[in-house]
Amino acid sequence: MTSLVSIKQLNEPTIEWLLRRAQYFVDNEPQTYVRGTAVNLFFEPSTRTALSFQIAAQRLGLKMLDFTIENSSTCKGESLIDTLQTVNALGVQLAVVRHGDDWPTLIAEENLRLALVNAGSGHYEHPTQALLDALTIKQHFGGFSGLKVTIVGDIRHSRVARSNKLLLELMGAQVSFSGPEIFYPYDIADCRWVDFDQAVAESDVVMMLRVQHERHQERFDVSDYNGRFGLNSFRLKQMKKDAIILHPGPVNRSVEVTGEVLQDSRCKILQQVANGVAVRMAVLEWCFQEERCEQLVSA
Amino acid sequence: MTSLVSIKQLNEPTIEWLLRRAQYFVDNEPQTYVRGTAVNLFFEPSTRTALSFQIAAQRLGLKMLDFTIENSSTCKGESLIDTLQTVNALGVQLAVVRHGDDWPTLIAEENLRLALVNAGSGHYEHPTQALLDALTIKQHFGGFSGLKVTIVGDIRHSRVARSNKLLLELMGAQVSFSGPEIFYPYDIADCRWVDFDQAVAESDVVMMLRVQHERHQERFDVSDYNGRFGLNSFRLKQMKKDAIILHPGPVNRSVEVTGEVLQDSRCKILQQVANGVAVRMAVLEWCFQEERCEQLVSA
Amino acid sequence: MTSLVSIKQLNEPTIEWLLRRAQYFVDNEPQTYVRGTAVNLFFEPSTRTALSFQIAAQRLGLKMLDFTIENSSTCKGESLIDTLQTVNALGVQLAVVRHGDDWPTLIAEENLRLALVNAGSGHYEHPTQALLDALTIKQHFGGFSGLKVTIVGDIRHSRVARSNKLLLELMGAQVSFSGPEIFYPYDIADCRWVDFDQAVAESDVVMMLRVQHERHQERFDVSDYNGRFGLNSFRLKQMKKDAIILHPGPVNRSVEVTGEVLQDSRCKILQQVANGVAVRMAVLEWCFQEERCEQLVSA
Repeated sequence: MTSLVSIKQLNEPTIEWLLRRAQYFVDNEPQTYVRGTAVNLFFEPSTRTALSFQIAAQRLGLKMLDFTIENSSTCKGESLIDTLQTVNALGVQLAVVRHGDDWPTLIAEENLRLALVNAGSGHYEHPTQALLDALTIKQHFGGFSGLKVTIVGDIRHSRVARSNKLLLELMGAQVSFSGPEIFYPYDIADCRWVDFDQAVAESDVVMMLRVQHERHQERFDVSDYNGRFGLNSFRLKQMKKDAIILHPGPVNRSVEVTGEVLQDSRCKILQQVANGVAVRMAVLEWCFQEERCEQLVSA
Repeated sequence: MTSLVSIKQLNEPTIEWLLRRAQYFVDNEPQTYVRGTAVNLFFEPSTRTALSFQIAAQRLGLKMLDFTIENSSTCKGESLIDTLQTVNALGVQLAVVRHGDDWPTLIAEENLRLALVNAGSGHYEHPTQALLDALTIKQHFGGFSGLKVTIVGDIRHSRVARSNKLLLELMGAQVSFSGPEIFYPYDIADCRWVDFDQAVAESDVVMMLRVQHERHQERFDVSDYNGRFGLNSFRLKQMKKDAIILHPGPVNRSVEVTGEVLQDSRCKILQQVANGVAVRMAVLEWCFQEERCEQLVSA
Repeated sequence: MTSLVSIKQLNEPTIEWLLRRAQYFVDNEPQTYVRGTAVNLFFEPSTRTALSFQIAAQRLGLKMLDFTIENSSTCKGESLIDTLQTVNALGVQLAVVRHGDDWPTLIAEENLRLALVNAGSGHYEHPTQALLDALTIKQHFGGFSGLKVTIVGDIRHSRVARSNKLLLELMGAQVSFSGPEIFYPYDIADCRWVDFDQAVAESDVVMMLRVQHERHQERFDVSDYNGRFGLNSFRLKQMKKDAIILHPGPVNRSVEVTGEVLQDSRCKILQQVANGVAVRMAVLEWCFQEERCEQLVSA
């Protein structure tokens, strides 16, 4: 058993292996099955990520348990580490965790036998999202070397932006950011901040982030967001013919993107969702069978 | 794959076929299994309908996923069509949807490959409820021709009333409504509105609707409801010996019906619940295997 | 089919049989499978108990359904007995129920074919918790005869305390209580109330109860709770070398116990969690196969 809590723990061959394995799951029904029990521990709302892990587990034959936060002992003040120790003692081998804090750091010192997959940690990391974005990019371009990727929007609060920068730069792409000044991420080293309209014209990949209304609705008016930092029929014309548009979802229609963008053939949002299941199958299999996978990587 | 969003899409032979198939599932364990993945998307509270679809799917061997609304991206403002496109991209083939709006009309223009089963759309339709009511009536009377059916209560807000009127009139029954004047449904064409006590004495089927406290608690006092529009030991004596009592549940005891009514042998409420599982098995199988089922209907 | 709603319905040989069967499930994968459908009906929050029953059912091959209270008809005012009758009509054979009232008494007069397992009834009973505590004690001491057990904390509101007193005294242990005067349980007959520090020094089993903030946060200040009625590094030294520490979880760290206590080898909290799954497997199997199990008990 192993954990996947950060892109930083992966090297290039392991990423390549996970992407190849995910592509295999896009193309084929799984032939091997993973025995074990996992649990989804989501302390923040989610549709696609939670269902995506559920479906991935089901396709692998893994047992996946429900954990509804509103009904749980966390209402009674139980700490995260005690919840994790408890699910481990229940016989669960792996927990998929989404939490508003940098939870891997919080529990790093603890002696925990449970394997963990990070499905979101505050604004820090979301490694399976970066892997599925990478798979979508690779399916279109065949590789990453020299690609210009611009991530647009609320970079400051975005774990998607941080995990993607780590992964895509490791694989040879050039990652830039754009968006309202208020969202400039002072904690990201080597932050390349670019003009949005120039990025639209020059990028191979334009990754739009969701305006996270639930995090800063008071500070932020979206009435002119699309005109200034969103994609629409005008900006679709400025984009390269061979570029692609990504978005981690859920989409705020008419804010980050308009309805025309969702219809455009360069928009790969639903392909990202489908790739998400395959990537999570690859990650779950890797966590349960890490030893064998490492051999395959080095082979 | 096909969808069932309205009784209006069904003709008499298809309804007969679905009822015969459901009766088969009442009497037998399923012998054939349906391969596929479905999801329950309930945007309104439910016990029996949601569990009923879950059990129906389980008995057919279908994989059924959980979708807890409180934890979902709909909290983040995602539109219904984007949620449906997302679950489709995740590999789900069919969604069972309950929603407070007339959602089939809202998404009618969209290009969606996902099959849909309507488990409730605003006050408009609830087709599987009408089918399970019809099965319960057919089990007792053998058919529908000439039966007098009276539906009593909050007709104005009732999707159950609307779907039942469509289905039962198509099958040859005569459907009347009764209840407080405030619940008269101005939008229903050919609305036959009758005196409640006369209906009790003359009807073959008395279908009591739930007073939906959650929809109009402010406008509506139930203290004398049972005396005026509810069933009780007095009205049980006025009913025909061979009549039956239906209720879609959940029951407000002492409002629509008293405890004595629930004990009366003419009360088929729990039989309706059991039939609900069988009807949903027939509907799910039909949606997944529509081509083969249509052949059986015409054979 | 049978129900387990109270320790009072069990005699010594049945308890011994359930504990031996649970120990078998600790040591082995189940070889026989239980056919049937069960549902978790939790009207109060839970992590470990709800998941524990889910995992137990899964390991036995039982189908287990979800019932999320927030989405259910109980929001619409359905009574508990009507909810139980409904899930029974849906084809469910057994319900695991947690509810804030003494629900077995409330429904005792009703004619219900559904088997029931009590996963918590108000402050009255929690029989599977007492069984898993007993299993943990038996694994350590080999038996119960003559053991001094002290249960500490909010005895007044504790179903865990009441079920444990019933079970452990039946098996030959001596059960005492300790804690703040405000938590003295006037309704428990033969209540042996002891000084906490003396109990720490003399007990073989020290069972710490959770301060239930959600039940009485207004009346109760925990700032000096650990000093007066909690375990900590000082009191660990006063305890017998061979004693054990139990807690039904979830733990309030630094209130009932400090971090040092959780690290101490005498602390069996995670072993209790693991035993919980095995005990619930034994109980569910017994409820579904009561006749066969009774033969085994008497054999």
